[in-house]
Amino acid sequence: MVDDSEFDYISWIKEQTKHGKNVLVGIGDDASVIDIGSGRKLVVTTDTVIEGVHCRLEDGAVLIGRKSLAVSISDLAAMGCPADYCVIAATLTKDTPRDFADDIYRGIRTIADVYKVDLVGGDVTTGKGPLSITTTVFGIAEGLEPVLRTGSQVGDAICVTGSLGGSLRGKHLRFEPRLTAGIELNRTFQVTSMIDISDGLVQDLAHLIEHRAFHGADIFAEAVPVSDDARALEADDGKSALEHALHDGEDFELCFTCSETVAQALVEGGVCGVSVSRIGTITDSGAIRLLKKGEAPSILSPDGYVHRFGQDG
Amino acid sequence: MVDDSEFDYISWIKEQTKHGKNVLVGIGDDASVIDIGSGRKLVVTTDTVIEGVHCRLEDGAVLIGRKSLAVSISDLAAMGCPADYCVIAATLTKDTPRDFADDIYRGIRTIADVYKVDLVGGDVTTGKGPLSITTTVFGIAEGLEPVLRTGSQVGDAICVTGSLGGSLRGKHLRFEPRLTAGIELNRTFQVTSMIDISDGLVQDLAHLIEHRAFHGADIFAEAVPVSDDARALEADDGKSALEHALHDGEDFELCFTCSETVAQALVEGGVCGVSVSRIGTITDSGAIRLLKKGEAPSILSPDGYVHRFGQDG
Repeated sequence: MVDDSEFDYISWIKEQTKHGKNVLVGIGDDASVIDIGSGRKLVVTTDTVIEGVHCRLEDGAVLIGRKSLAVSISDLAAMGCPADYCVIAATLTKDTPRDFADDIYRGIRTIADVYKVDLVGGDVTTGKGPLSITTTVFGIAEGLEPVLRTGSQVGDAICVTGSLGGSLRGKHLRFEPRLTAGIELNRTFQVTSMIDISDGLVQDLAHLIEHRAFHGADIFAEAVPVSDDARALEADDGKSALEHALHDGEDFELCFTCSETVAQALVEGGVCGVSVSRIGTITDSGAIRLLKKGEAPSILSPDGYVHRFGQDG
Repeated sequence: MVDDSEFDYISWIKEQTKHGKNVLVGIGDDASVIDIGSGRKLVVTTDTVIEGVHCRLEDGAVLIGRKSLAVSISDLAAMGCPADYCVIAATLTKDTPRDFADDIYRGIRTIADVYKVDLVGGDVTTGKGPLSITTTVFGIAEGLEPVLRTGSQVGDAICVTGSLGGSLRGKHLRFEPRLTAGIELNRTFQVTSMIDISDGLVQDLAHLIEHRAFHGADIFAEAVPVSDDARALEADDGKSALEHALHDGEDFELCFTCSETVAQALVEGGVCGVSVSRIGTITDSGAIRLLKKGEAPSILSPDGYVHRFGQDG
């Protein structure tokens, strides 16, 4: 299946699938939400990290293990909900040395321990390769309403945590999932919608406006927090640092919407030690536009940048 | 990693991993059990089905999809607990045709619909191959104590559902997970321990006695329910039908222990339309022995038969 058709396939699956009454959020958000009674919700996400697509063996087993769990924790961060437990299915190969396998576990534990995710079970399979790890992370939300992708209103401020672009230089392996910040944004700051940036800012932001045909977003070019990695890549590949910040994937920062007042408070004070930038506004233009001082607005197409090693060099 | 070391690896992981107080069963049973309060327990399992190990492309997408979910449902059956929700991570390849991908979903749905498992989310990745599908299934047990591998006592009867052996002839793809029977065995029949037969009767039975060093099991050769498939294989490969029944994997029948009285009732009446055979007794011999009329007992080593296509022909 070619890359773009993954999205078509998921849309088709979503259309085919009906959920029971306890399923509050099904296919199509960062995580699913199930009403488990007594005012509590089970929030669950699953993600696969595969050698040759999301990591390379040369990255080392510890960082591969770490990333495999971090990406799922990041999905629960994007729901503003805790990540309490995980189960992990690892597919190793006949050539995987035992100490490499041990280091995968150690990498998983480094991040599980920091974010207090309890590894409760798993499965180990040996295949022909490539190596792949599927993590399923779930949290129990009590007194906390999961933040969906569909809550933004025209006029909401658009914000992001941290800085963006160039994650391929190392952040895609070493990033801190914004779990504490995500929960705090939910609990204290009434954010209206949220997503983690895995496919690129513009592509992921598109998911925050697609629930209304007329919804659009204006991004203020000068306000986008361009990372040092994005600047370093600009020097290498000629694509501007801003383009890297807009389209590079796997920064795993949070992109969210909120009121103007909340945005101002967050820009001033950050959240849980993480900086927040207010980068734009939800509009009724039906498009994502880039506003640059002294230039006419340009339309951004939401084709993110997806890391792909191996086949593509 | 060579095949046998998977078990060593999992044992090592189990030793390294400490669980929080809400984790009632962690790594090492068919599923994990988490106390979610109000007298309810979340029971969760994850499993990977991978092309070349558990299935072949020639088996067809529908049966591959079906099997990927059926194996996880079978794990919850072995806990005697319901299978309510699932998330599925599918790793396709660039060569996977879209209609093949659609048929994987259709296969998943055929079994999800029968067992009323709600598909609440997932992840789709495209890798270099082979195709693999990881399913994570959750159930919420209320008023139902999950059946563990560790509850058998010396003197308990050993029983199995259905018939055993030769699943490679097709049952390994088409089996019905014994979910209704498993729940009923738990709810009504006070079974003391249970496991599903994925690696072979002897190998899986070994997991029901390993919690006590002196525990053993006597199997009555004439009582083992040998399947027609096992007999058919005997004609082909010279291994006896009984050997197939004792060691072939992927029958996904239930093996459980209970009192003599319960065993007798189950053998007479079956459970939820499934036949039950009483095949042996838990002993204090520390070994698994095969008792055959007119012969001296023989010791069975618990090396099951694992389906492996591809590399091994």
